[in-house]
Amino acid sequence: MLLNIDPILSPDLLFILRAMGHGDSLAIVDANFPAEGLGPKCIRADGSDATAILRAVLSLLPLDAKVADPAICMAVVGEPDAVPEAVADFQAVIQEVADTPRDIQSLERFAFYERAKTASAVVQTGERRLYGNILLTKGVIG
Amino acid sequence: MLLNIDPILSPDLLFILRAMGHGDSLAIVDANFPAEGLGPKCIRADGSDATAILRAVLSLLPLDAKVADPAICMAVVGEPDAVPEAVADFQAVIQEVADTPRDIQSLERFAFYERAKTASAVVQTGERRLYGNILLTKGVIG
Amino acid sequence: MLLNIDPILSPDLLFILRAMGHGDSLAIVDANFPAEGLGPKCIRADGSDATAILRAVLSLLPLDAKVADPAICMAVVGEPDAVPEAVADFQAVIQEVADTPRDIQSLERFAFYERAKTASAVVQTGERRLYGNILLTKGVIG
Amino acid sequence: MLLNIDPILSPDLLFILRAMGHGDSLAIVDANFPAEGLGPKCIRADGSDATAILRAVLSLLPLDAKVADPAICMAVVGEPDAVPEAVADFQAVIQEVADTPRDIQSLERFAFYERAKTASAVVQTGERRLYGNILLTKGVIG
Amino acid sequence: MLLNIDPILSPDLLFILRAMGHGDSLAIVDANFPAEGLGPKCIRADGSDATAILRAVLSLLPLDAKVADPAICMAVVGEPDAVPEAVADFQAVIQEVADTPRDIQSLERFAFYERAKTASAVVQTGERRLYGNILLTKGVIG
Amino acid sequence: MLLNIDPILSPDLLFILRAMGHGDSLAIVDANFPAEGLGPKCIRADGSDATAILRAVLSLLPLDAKVADPAICMAVVGEPDAVPEAVADFQAVIQEVADTPRDIQSLERFAFYERAKTASAVVQTGERRLYGNILLTKGVIG
Amino acid sequence: MLLNIDPILSPDLLFILRAMGHGDSLAIVDANFPAEGLGPKCIRADGSDATAILRAVLSLLPLDAKVADPAICMAVVGEPDAVPEAVADFQAVIQEVADTPRDIQSLERFAFYERAKTASAVVQTGERRLYGNILLTKGVIG
Amino acid sequence: MLLNIDPILSPDLLFILRAMGHGDSLAIVDANFPAEGLGPKCIRADGSDATAILRAVLSLLPLDAKVADPAICMAVVGEPDAVPEAVADFQAVIQEVADTPRDIQSLERFAFYERAKTASAVVQTGERRLYGNILLTKGVIG
Amino acid sequence: MLLNIDPILSPDLLFILRAMGHGDSLAIVDANFPAEGLGPKCIRADGSDATAILRAVLSLLPLDAKVADPAICMAVVGEPDAVPEAVADFQAVIQEVADTPRDIQSLERFAFYERAKTASAVVQTGERRLYGNILLTKGVIG
Amino acid sequence: MLLNIDPILSPDLLFILRAMGHGDSLAIVDANFPAEGLGPKCIRADGSDATAILRAVLSLLPLDAKVADPAICMAVVGEPDAVPEAVADFQAVIQEVADTPRDIQSLERFAFYERAKTASAVVQTGERRLYGNILLTKGVIG
Repeated sequence: MLLNIDPILSPDLLFILRAMGHGDSLAIVDANFPAEGLGPKCIRADGSDATAILRAVLSLLPLDAKVADPAICMAVVGEPDAVPEAVADFQAVIQEVADTPRDIQSLERFAFYERAKTASAVVQTGERRLYGNILLTKGVIG
Repeated sequence: MLLNIDPILSPDLLFILRAMGHGDSLAIVDANFPAEGLGPKCIRADGSDATAILRAVLSLLPLDAKVADPAICMAVVGEPDAVPEAVADFQAVIQEVADTPRDIQSLERFAFYERAKTASAVVQTGERRLYGNILLTKGVIG
Repeated sequence: MLLNIDPILSPDLLFILRAMGHGDSLAIVDANFPAEGLGPKCIRADGSDATAILRAVLSLLPLDAKVADPAICMAVVGEPDAVPEAVADFQAVIQEVADTPRDIQSLERFAFYERAKTASAVVQTGERRLYGNILLTKGVIG
Repeated sequence: MLLNIDPILSPDLLFILRAMGHGDSLAIVDANFPAEGLGPKCIRADGSDATAILRAVLSLLPLDAKVADPAICMAVVGEPDAVPEAVADFQAVIQEVADTPRDIQSLERFAFYERAKTASAVVQTGERRLYGNILLTKGVIG
Repeated sequence: MLLNIDPILSPDLLFILRAMGHGDSLAIVDANFPAEGLGPKCIRADGSDATAILRAVLSLLPLDAKVADPAICMAVVGEPDAVPEAVADFQAVIQEVADTPRDIQSLERFAFYERAKTASAVVQTGERRLYGNILLTKGVIG
Repeated sequence: MLLNIDPILSPDLLFILRAMGHGDSLAIVDANFPAEGLGPKCIRADGSDATAILRAVLSLLPLDAKVADPAICMAVVGEPDAVPEAVADFQAVIQEVADTPRDIQSLERFAFYERAKTASAVVQTGERRLYGNILLTKGVIG
Repeated sequence: MLLNIDPILSPDLLFILRAMGHGDSLAIVDANFPAEGLGPKCIRADGSDATAILRAVLSLLPLDAKVADPAICMAVVGEPDAVPEAVADFQAVIQEVADTPRDIQSLERFAFYERAKTASAVVQTGERRLYGNILLTKGVIG
Repeated sequence: MLLNIDPILSPDLLFILRAMGHGDSLAIVDANFPAEGLGPKCIRADGSDATAILRAVLSLLPLDAKVADPAICMAVVGEPDAVPEAVADFQAVIQEVADTPRDIQSLERFAFYERAKTASAVVQTGERRLYGNILLTKGVIG
Repeated sequence: MLLNIDPILSPDLLFILRAMGHGDSLAIVDANFPAEGLGPKCIRADGSDATAILRAVLSLLPLDAKVADPAICMAVVGEPDAVPEAVADFQAVIQEVADTPRDIQSLERFAFYERAKTASAVVQTGERRLYGNILLTKGVIG
Repeated sequence: MLLNIDPILSPDLLFILRAMGHGDSLAIVDANFPAEGLGPKCIRADGSDATAILRAVLSLLPLDAKVADPAICMAVVGEPDAVPEAVADFQAVIQEVADTPRDIQSLERFAFYERAKTASAVVQTGERRLYGNILLTKGVIG
């Protein structure tokens, strides 16, 4: 553990957050998400739910203020306008914690998978609620 | 996740539990324990407390019924007879879950480190309570 | 070995089953199948027949209830409607064990190879009967 | 599979049998044996019992005719003269199959572990009977 | 060395023969063939000629009875109908040893290279005669 | 870069600080120190002086309050009581920043090398002043 | 450190500068640049600003006198003709130090990323000013 | 060193010369050539000029007598018919040493780079003269 | 293959012969020798007998003229003065080929194993005759 | 190549010289020295003689002014007081180039080997003269 850093951020996750640059993205995904074979490094966080990881990540990571969609969720299959409970919670965390809060945008399921393949890493949480996935784009620190 | 298996057991932890044999040991340690450079593979479980991991582990792992000390904790420095709160909880979990419950034995701090170096793996939990460490020895399945 | 888990599931196979997510697939193949150089990790199970592995896998792995073909076999070359004995046994195991039983669909031999290349792993069994191959897609655990 | 070779011998096991020379040893162990972290490469054979593996191995491997103990088992703890059922079966297989049959010698449990650490490989079978372990020393082919 | 197995089959070659499945191929090539950088694993057999390796391989490997060209040689450049001495010897070995003898088919030099790139391995022999190359496709063991 | 974390802490250094546990140590050394081949991982910080790294490290790392020497410098050869300018600066930084300030203890040159070999990592700074080396022991976070 | 070589050039950076040939390029980037996952090896220089690294690099590296753009910066988004302060400083360093000074050319942001992917390495500095990035092409030493 | 082999041929270079087959090529390049990141293994020969390496290589390597261009140099940029001094020396060495001397052909600079990417290895010499590069294709030994 | 070099010397063997220096040794061993797990790199030469390899090696490798035992064989167990046929052949090859012929000395079996563990490599030949092992020490080339 | 750096210093050698610290040593050895298997990384410089490498190394590396033997050669076997020609040349180079010239000390042959095992690297030159070996200890840059 370290002073002033949320201890649910593991060494691997802290490394990748620090190594990411402007425009790089991070995926935080639920316990059912196919994360291990997707391509990017998979960082396990089986004992944490997705909102706790999101809150901890946003305490260190600036969202990209220069794009319209620095936070993206997976659209509900067949109900693209639905807002799953987990996503509503993500939005609340962003409002509360992010340096530049934005509305979460959504992507169709398989488009979300494609986008997640370009992430710097995928954090697999123990989130049990469906659609508990979010993609964040890192901004600039002036 | 898998049916009938506690989802806080990550792929790496499930692998090592299955690979261990009679007499092999597993260390479950708290968030302050020097686990990464100890020698055995370190499996991160930053989002779980030690009792939750212990409970999940004992749902799959038999304790060694042939030795007197299949469960060992670290003695409090300067107070070898004290029973820290985390250890009391470990004992309760063992009574409730283990196939062959035994009293937890204790080892002096540096002797505990030496013993942990011989473990098959060290699981670093997010346990915040001091002395939240336990060493388990695997038994036989008949 | 572990309590409550079929011991023919090796550490590697248990790891991959746990690491797989929604939509990932696993191939269980017979002793003549060209598994080692196919692409995915090849897990050896030379001493088990395919139905025993299927039964053990389905005790832990949910089938994907959201697709029409969560279980796929290889069509007999030249007799696409034939049901080989091994496949009939697979269907019986699925009926008995799977959480959401479905009819096994079939794919032409080379299409089956292509699909198997996208699996998370290929389990090479000692199954001696021809066409003793099956592809499973993992579902969601709610 | 190959012509004239028992198919329960996996590629890894065939490799090691062929690579071994005069005086090298192989351990065939039961499902409870602590094989993975012992030191030598661990070859999984979870779906086979130890006698089947022994029979297949002896179809290819000559026993060392120049030493008194080319086949060694683990002595029963507390009953050094007991002959466990698995060991009796091993002796029968050796009588039937080995090129130069010898009486199996026994070693105390921890001495057996030490000896197994010097083996070229350890084959972990699915043998459920206790004391289902045997160490073989390879002989010369003239 | 092993009982009943030709000792010119090295551990690596035995491994790959055992690991190959139905439809996988093996290239046995002469001493001038560009084998090391071709792509597949290159197994050295500098001290053996190609016919000796072919004979040893066919003692274990079934040819694919379901295709027209389970054995392919390289056509002589500029004389596609010529039968080099090495190829005539290969045909004689196949007639004598293979479980299902077939006529060797031929491929133009660069087409042969392309086909060899898909082999499970390339065995580089010490064969000094030109055109001493053959590609074998593995069959099924019933 | 990350919010609220000194950007001279590189991804590797942040990783190791987070991974260290109670009693693990970190060496921060000057530009002449023989760091690369010492044994522990060497983390380059050629563009920073040692005091800047020390200040950044102590903003995250608690010193061990349970030992007498959580901060150790190298004694001047031949003048064991001298306090080099760099060490005086280290002491000032500790007084200002550390959670539990302690007097820096000193070790003879070769004893310091031996102790540094047990560190979790060695940070090689661009510090040009001689004796610009310090060993820190990590404490507990309650 | 070495005689006559700027000590902010780390071993890795010195290696790559020496290994580069005519026409190879090096990217020196600011602290916000997405360097770690870009493709080329990322060399950390968190404690140095970009102009200091540029000056040190040009003391050893000849610019390519045979191309029009041996030094390239990233154009300001939306203001392609603007000259950021960092770039003005880069130009001054080039005028002062380079063996064959040239005007820095500019590339649109994403074109700059594509070009940087072909660099021999990316040096991530601690440069805090935006647009503190430069790509250098190595010339010939006669 | 070895008897009868030029000692400027290092172990790595001897290995690759021996491993190459009919039609494989080797690039011998000057000190300014961008060799390290080109793709093929780069073998350093910083202390030798290109003609010395060429002479040593041709003492062991047969040139391909079946192609028109077993030796290729880089055309002078803007003067495709010029014959640089280094190339004239290469031609003299080939006349003197090669088993089947041929006129060196030339390729435009970037076409030469593309061809060099397909070489089995690139030998980077200390040749200081510009255009001191040559690509050799290995022939057959009857 | 290469001009003027015996083609039974594989790329790996040529590499190690060239890399060895004064006082380094090479073991050439028979087909029963326990070579793979001994420690040094094992180079396979299954298709060659030991005398052929010895002859090829001595065409390149000088024997150490400064020691009394540059060539050592394994003494026959129980008959230390016997000269096995293979050793007699080795002596004849040395007389004929070596630059500085010496009488082969002998070492007891297990002492020979210990000495072979210090060799730069072990060449496992297909030599079928017992005691077909020899250790060579490399000399100086003036 | 780089400006102002002797081009016989390869990327690997430049890396190690820069990475070495106070008290680390470098061995420069002749063509007969057993360098590859000694332990430290072996850097090939087959095309350069030892004095040229020594001169280039000393243009960058300070000798340790705090020890009596920053430069050590191997004593002639049987003539410990002899000064081989190569060593006389080394002394002349040191006098001419080193920042703090010292008399070269000598060590008995096997003691020299032991000392060389502790070097940061061994540079194997093409030096043909016997006893062309020297060990240098790096000093401090103030």
